[in-house]
Amino acid sequence: MPHYKAPVEDMMFLLRDVFRVEDVFAELPEQQENDLETIGNILEEAGKFCSEILYPLNAVGDIEGCRLENGVVRTPQGFAEAWKAFSDAGWGGLSAPTDYGGQNLPRTVQILVDEMLSASNLSFGLFPGLTRGACEAIEAHASQNLKDTYLPNMISGVWTGAMALTEGNAGSDLGLLKTTAVPRSDGSWTVTGSKIFISSGDHDMAENVIHLVLARLPDAPAGTKGISLFLCPKVLVNADGSLGAQNAISVGALEHKMGIHAQPTCVMNYDGCQGWMVGEPNRGLAAMFTMMNAERLFVGVQGLGVADASGQTALAYARERLQGRADDRSGVVPIIAHADVRRMLLSMQSFIEAARAMAVYTALEMDREKFHPDDAVRQRAGENVALLTPVIKAALTDFGFEAAVAGQQVLGGHGYIREWGQEQYVRDARIAMIYEGTNGIQAQDLVIRKLSLADGQPVRAYFAQIHQTLASAAMDSYAAALAEPLRAALDLLEGVTARLVSGDLASADDRNAAAVDYLRLFALVSFGWMWLRMVLACAAPGKTLPEPRVRHKRAAATFFMQRVLPQAAALTQQIGAGAGSIMALPDEMF
Amino acid sequence: MPHYKAPVEDMMFLLRDVFRVEDVFAELPEQQENDLETIGNILEEAGKFCSEILYPLNAVGDIEGCRLENGVVRTPQGFAEAWKAFSDAGWGGLSAPTDYGGQNLPRTVQILVDEMLSASNLSFGLFPGLTRGACEAIEAHASQNLKDTYLPNMISGVWTGAMALTEGNAGSDLGLLKTTAVPRSDGSWTVTGSKIFISSGDHDMAENVIHLVLARLPDAPAGTKGISLFLCPKVLVNADGSLGAQNAISVGALEHKMGIHAQPTCVMNYDGCQGWMVGEPNRGLAAMFTMMNAERLFVGVQGLGVADASGQTALAYARERLQGRADDRSGVVPIIAHADVRRMLLSMQSFIEAARAMAVYTALEMDREKFHPDDAVRQRAGENVALLTPVIKAALTDFGFEAAVAGQQVLGGHGYIREWGQEQYVRDARIAMIYEGTNGIQAQDLVIRKLSLADGQPVRAYFAQIHQTLASAAMDSYAAALAEPLRAALDLLEGVTARLVSGDLASADDRNAAAVDYLRLFALVSFGWMWLRMVLACAAPGKTLPEPRVRHKRAAATFFMQRVLPQAAALTQQIGAGAGSIMALPDEMF
Repeated sequence: MPHYKAPVEDMMFLLRDVFRVEDVFAELPEQQENDLETIGNILEEAGKFCSEILYPLNAVGDIEGCRLENGVVRTPQGFAEAWKAFSDAGWGGLSAPTDYGGQNLPRTVQILVDEMLSASNLSFGLFPGLTRGACEAIEAHASQNLKDTYLPNMISGVWTGAMALTEGNAGSDLGLLKTTAVPRSDGSWTVTGSKIFISSGDHDMAENVIHLVLARLPDAPAGTKGISLFLCPKVLVNADGSLGAQNAISVGALEHKMGIHAQPTCVMNYDGCQGWMVGEPNRGLAAMFTMMNAERLFVGVQGLGVADASGQTALAYARERLQGRADDRSGVVPIIAHADVRRMLLSMQSFIEAARAMAVYTALEMDREKFHPDDAVRQRAGENVALLTPVIKAALTDFGFEAAVAGQQVLGGHGYIREWGQEQYVRDARIAMIYEGTNGIQAQDLVIRKLSLADGQPVRAYFAQIHQTLASAAMDSYAAALAEPLRAALDLLEGVTARLVSGDLASADDRNAAAVDYLRLFALVSFGWMWLRMVLACAAPGKTLPEPRVRHKRAAATFFMQRVLPQAAALTQQIGAGAGSIMALPDEMF
Repeated sequence: MPHYKAPVEDMMFLLRDVFRVEDVFAELPEQQENDLETIGNILEEAGKFCSEILYPLNAVGDIEGCRLENGVVRTPQGFAEAWKAFSDAGWGGLSAPTDYGGQNLPRTVQILVDEMLSASNLSFGLFPGLTRGACEAIEAHASQNLKDTYLPNMISGVWTGAMALTEGNAGSDLGLLKTTAVPRSDGSWTVTGSKIFISSGDHDMAENVIHLVLARLPDAPAGTKGISLFLCPKVLVNADGSLGAQNAISVGALEHKMGIHAQPTCVMNYDGCQGWMVGEPNRGLAAMFTMMNAERLFVGVQGLGVADASGQTALAYARERLQGRADDRSGVVPIIAHADVRRMLLSMQSFIEAARAMAVYTALEMDREKFHPDDAVRQRAGENVALLTPVIKAALTDFGFEAAVAGQQVLGGHGYIREWGQEQYVRDARIAMIYEGTNGIQAQDLVIRKLSLADGQPVRAYFAQIHQTLASAAMDSYAAALAEPLRAALDLLEGVTARLVSGDLASADDRNAAAVDYLRLFALVSFGWMWLRMVLACAAPGKTLPEPRVRHKRAAATFFMQRVLPQAAALTQQIGAGAGSIMALPDEMF
């Protein structure tokens, strides 16, 4: 029963009909040669790899998990072979620069492959995801020598990457970290400290693991302005590129987790290991954050991917499971006949498809930011990405988890049983709400930093885009019916935004108290916007989506506006209550 | 860090100040001698047992789980000893009839002990919970001989009980079940069939397991009107009460589950075993349902209990964990200083305390239903219990799961790690939304059956009680401020109730589509009512709650009205949309 098939047709609908990406790529000198047929083939191939190679390892990886044997992490059976097949096919270098062996494909394509990876095997998907993140940090900030030494092997998958930020007493507040770095005479550094929650910290799938480690110089200022970034390889690399001695890096323990059991989440000890600084002294956090947008988009898409995998199983089950009667005259029916089951399926689908559209929209902005020849366009696109990054990360993982819980519920008792797969999705999806900055931290980032970014121009520009779509809704009767509730919700969002930026809710406590509800409101309006765009695309001349999918899009869009978007008013009211009732009670009386 | 302490002070506040249970017990001939001091001592002792004996087994039971060895289930280390200690102390017979060795204490006390059991060890708590359910069915429907043979040993904990309803193709739709029962010459029956998801189906903690099995007679009509109930002991009992031969009952498999690993959820095979009919032929489902209210209340309280355990750990963590600054001047602070963390804690607490009040309110109605001398009072109380049962079961487990997810989020990365305990609560709490009738089925029961029960008199009477409390809110300034949002939400609930019963939303599909949202709306108003009653009790002369807890109650009540109850309007709007967008799409286009 459990299965996963990459939704390539729906993905191509977004690329072709909704976002017309060929027109966008035509403006980007390095991306002009991408055509939809090639992209479609890539997505088909990626989907095949994920369904045939990674998906069958998902349940077995969960059961077997990783083991720490004599200081070395052993991944579950089949993972090393899958990693080799993945690397040999070049999937690790999809969007990496050609200078170091990558294919330089747009982020827009990468993000759809990321969704497939996450849907078919979240634990596995973290290996390439973190390797790519480490590569992007190295590419943006490291010396040419470090780039030449490390990037080709990381992009080809001969080596993998890991990012070592969190310590026992420094999680959301990285300013508290204590790992130290002391200079050596040869220009390298001695890094000493212990880190926790290090995904892909060690494993047996590749010859080397390249750690990017945050640490403090001896004279560093306190807090976040005294943190530097170091590249510390598990195995030292000789001048000729061959592997040398083991570096003083060891695995302290494997964490016992709720899910992603096939992903080695390590306690890592850097016992005076040798490292090389990446970027400027005391500017390590900034270097890390240059690739944080991409990583957070990746994590958001994890929530989306798992939700889709759960939704596919739930739909198949709902069509096959016979239980109950639709009315007194009929015999036993598949449970998809029952309105409440259909409601659960539509609640999942109306999230999944809008979330995928948001991810593509944001990735396309990242492509503009990276590749567009016009500075002003790049700047605006970058600000829009900065604005949307916390929304994508938090909303896609929050709603994605809720969707996975719904997908479990559709299966009734079977949803709780391991063999049916749905419970693993819930356990796996849960981590995405926590790591890479908790969803609470994302919400703070949105409200406190991003709304005020560039004097609020990005958020105003974003809302203006939604108004623009609303203005064109009248051209299609289906779209016109959706526009009214969306316009009302957007009004609420704009109103509460003004209050948070400089109105009666702009105090630190009010913003802090409002943040999570505000992000959810922002996401609901964004999903509604995506639905309106999708329905308009269904009416556009030359649209390629087959008629049954068009009907599905219209039904899911209507469901979203009628059955999900009404929450916008409640969230607005909750935010409007301010922090009073939250801050009044002394800590000890909780 | 993880710990659990039974909230006896808050429980006594409900019994003494909010519901004045001594006055109620004074009207119930069999319960007149209960005084609050004795009840307080019982709750203290129960809390001690749960904290000291059951809670330490919770995490180890999760890790070790149950094992099937040579056809026999082995429970985790310590469970058999805990069961013996539990039984020796008489906890299994708390509310059982004195005729068979019980203490005949009110359900109102039992339900608070159930909460503690569920909070400290959900897997363990199912053993006494299911045994009690089986005893209640036997007491209500079995022959005197069966009662005399089985009840004393089940109530004392020498034997345990299990209920065997579900089959592979008959879950929510029990009418499809296929297990058969054929008469023997001695008046007993031969029961043959296979059942799945049988909690406490087998174990090594007691000498015998008494199965209540639903099966069909050879000439039974199809559907739910052809189901009979049979008592099938694992070990046959001789005429003198001693144990005889093994019955033809075997464990087919142990289910691999998301959580409650220490609870043996069995596939059970009844291979032509000997059984005795309980109740009338073809009336088995009705016999099962007489104790369903109590079982569903018990399951609801599981959601509440786990939420409280998670909340206690989250609160302790939030007070100790140093991370971030409240403002630029301060040093690092405990995270409870941050508004968003306080919001999470209050969202949990404002649910937990209202849910506990609802459970006590409902249990007190069950005591009236069982013990009151006036037929009319018993009848009204019984109808109120019938109305509220699906609300308690579904809302306490839905919101309880959400609270456990929030409690996990408070701990950040540590929330995902097994050793911190929070992730187990999420896995364990999840089952309560599924078993004993999924929460979707509960919602259908509420909307389709219970709103129309006795021509709608029970639901009108329930709303009238809320109006009555609202009318008295003016006597206290804190209560008066809460009354306005509650009155508005009650208006919405009453309006949509009328539409579902006989208005524009009374079609089968509209009701089915509305059910889950409606139950949630009903629960929100009920929780709001409980908050109003608690705040009024804080202002009543002679109230015993210490001042810091009074301040907590007022703050949590305000939080609930401002930050949770606004969802009522959104739910009303969603319900009002009807089933149109849900039913329009053909099955194959989902």
